[in-house]
Amino acid sequence: MPTSVPVPTAQLQDFIARVLAAVGMPDADARVVGGIMAEADARGADAHGIFRLPAYVKRIRAGGMNMRPDIRIVQERAGSALLDGDNGIGHLIMKKAADLAVQKARTTGVAWVGARMSNHAGPAGIYARMPLQHGMIGIYMAVGSANHMPPWGGTEMLLSTNPIAIAVPGRSRPPIVLDMATTNAAYGKVKAKAQRGEMMPEGWMVGRDGQPLLDPKRSNEGFLLPIGGAKGYGLAMMFGLLAGTLNGAAFGKDVVDFNQDYATTTNTGHTVIALDVEAFMPLRQFEEQVDDIWAQMKASELLPGADEIRLPGEQSHRTYEERIANGVPIHGELRATLDALADSLGVAPLGA
Amino acid sequence: MPTSVPVPTAQLQDFIARVLAAVGMPDADARVVGGIMAEADARGADAHGIFRLPAYVKRIRAGGMNMRPDIRIVQERAGSALLDGDNGIGHLIMKKAADLAVQKARTTGVAWVGARMSNHAGPAGIYARMPLQHGMIGIYMAVGSANHMPPWGGTEMLLSTNPIAIAVPGRSRPPIVLDMATTNAAYGKVKAKAQRGEMMPEGWMVGRDGQPLLDPKRSNEGFLLPIGGAKGYGLAMMFGLLAGTLNGAAFGKDVVDFNQDYATTTNTGHTVIALDVEAFMPLRQFEEQVDDIWAQMKASELLPGADEIRLPGEQSHRTYEERIANGVPIHGELRATLDALADSLGVAPLGA
Repeated sequence: MPTSVPVPTAQLQDFIARVLAAVGMPDADARVVGGIMAEADARGADAHGIFRLPAYVKRIRAGGMNMRPDIRIVQERAGSALLDGDNGIGHLIMKKAADLAVQKARTTGVAWVGARMSNHAGPAGIYARMPLQHGMIGIYMAVGSANHMPPWGGTEMLLSTNPIAIAVPGRSRPPIVLDMATTNAAYGKVKAKAQRGEMMPEGWMVGRDGQPLLDPKRSNEGFLLPIGGAKGYGLAMMFGLLAGTLNGAAFGKDVVDFNQDYATTTNTGHTVIALDVEAFMPLRQFEEQVDDIWAQMKASELLPGADEIRLPGEQSHRTYEERIANGVPIHGELRATLDALADSLGVAPLGA
Repeated sequence: MPTSVPVPTAQLQDFIARVLAAVGMPDADARVVGGIMAEADARGADAHGIFRLPAYVKRIRAGGMNMRPDIRIVQERAGSALLDGDNGIGHLIMKKAADLAVQKARTTGVAWVGARMSNHAGPAGIYARMPLQHGMIGIYMAVGSANHMPPWGGTEMLLSTNPIAIAVPGRSRPPIVLDMATTNAAYGKVKAKAQRGEMMPEGWMVGRDGQPLLDPKRSNEGFLLPIGGAKGYGLAMMFGLLAGTLNGAAFGKDVVDFNQDYATTTNTGHTVIALDVEAFMPLRQFEEQVDDIWAQMKASELLPGADEIRLPGEQSHRTYEERIANGVPIHGELRATLDALADSLGVAPLGA
């Protein structure tokens, strides 16, 4: 088993940027995307950072993503906007969406910015966090990039793991950041189990017969289970309507499986909401009260067997501090894949 | 077992209105609340309609709710507002919040209206539905009126079943309306199991030892389980921060158990969001696409043992049509309670 070697986030960003530039992305855009992807890795979203780079390059080479998109506002009001991403990479489009939402919410109190004709953008939490540094709460929803779930009671894969992220600022504590799929397990976790040769716990997947499916190598014979049964199905449905249908983006049978089809335009839809805390109470007062909620939860007695109570985003925050200090561990297998990618593009390898 | 007798919704509204008027609510307000509570019953939210009337009266008599509240806007921007409900009944406050959100969203595209110093307001779906008739999407979140859940891994009851509702308009189909608690079972379902002398299925509750708790008569020895484990805990947390803390309302240890304490001001917090569809695409086009999503889901093949695929809110819509036509079934036991209430207040009984 090859070992992991830590790589500073700046080197991750540099490498991602030069790879994307080599396949035609303007340098400035490539640096923005590299920064967001490196942040995803730093925050522990290992399945949404540099790990995705080879697939992005594959899509770009297949003509499935536009390297020089004209990201434009299709429709706009004081507190809302709809962006057309012109089939650009999701990171650029959703950063623009978040920036616009923050700018609008400064005046209106809240802003809701949707995007269509986008692509995979990495972890939901990244975009929910963007308003935080402006004293705002952030919310992000997306239509996932492949359908892995049927409607509750059915067998046809019409829904993705449509995620939501909500980020709320704290003062002396880290922000509280929920970032979750609406299924018990994200599909990436299934793939990780398969790689490790482990069985899945009951509740992650069922087969088309409705019986528990435990072997991750047979994952294409079944589908993911939503959290809380019909409730998680309902959440996936509503997030799909809000982030997909309302934006004129793909939802339901129109969703392109980005792991299978690299050429077809995905028309991915996402939405980001910025909410200015000062429209409700002084920011400092709010942050102190969020800290107090944090402390209340932490002070609860523990269930037998539990080691601690964690707030949403706390683990990710710890990972972030550790990785900013010591680098992001890059597994030997991923490293080999990235080296081969660099070689094929004639760019310097990671860390060089 | 006494039988159920159907009562027209107009009679429910009339009765609720005269009871509330008898305990000091202005007539016009009493009719508004009666209408909302009767609609809750018509939509099948049996635990959130007239069933709650005796407890509301008990709270009013104990001085725990203000019959002549000055519901005022504390802070306001073009797309946001914070209401102080002055300890009025939640229905009045949240109707005002929804009306204000719709009015603002007409201009800004989206509006976010929070309320503090409110009280129980009935089912979440009622307020998410209010923007529908204006061609808007509605979202509602609330801090529940009693804590029944600890933070994930803990045993101290610091969280409620904090619900969310999201309502999206259809064209030839009913609107798609999700209305859910963030726990596997709402507490009312536990109480219903206890009344029927039935055991609960595994997954609803655990004891303080972390072991499944199946006897609903022992429900005070344990707590409700969130959907998807830590994910549902995270949702309850974020909805609490958004609908409680941000509004200056109770969340965490400050939540008053409205079933135990009828005199203390609850300072209940809720939030309603209105999103104008026309800020994103023509309403008709959107509604047709929502209908198409509905049809896609319905057309899925069924899992073995499933009788049909339902969209969120579909069952409630069927119940609504049936009950508007035939009346709301009022169980003999509830009827007797309501008759005693009428008698104690010297008002005409239900249906008179």
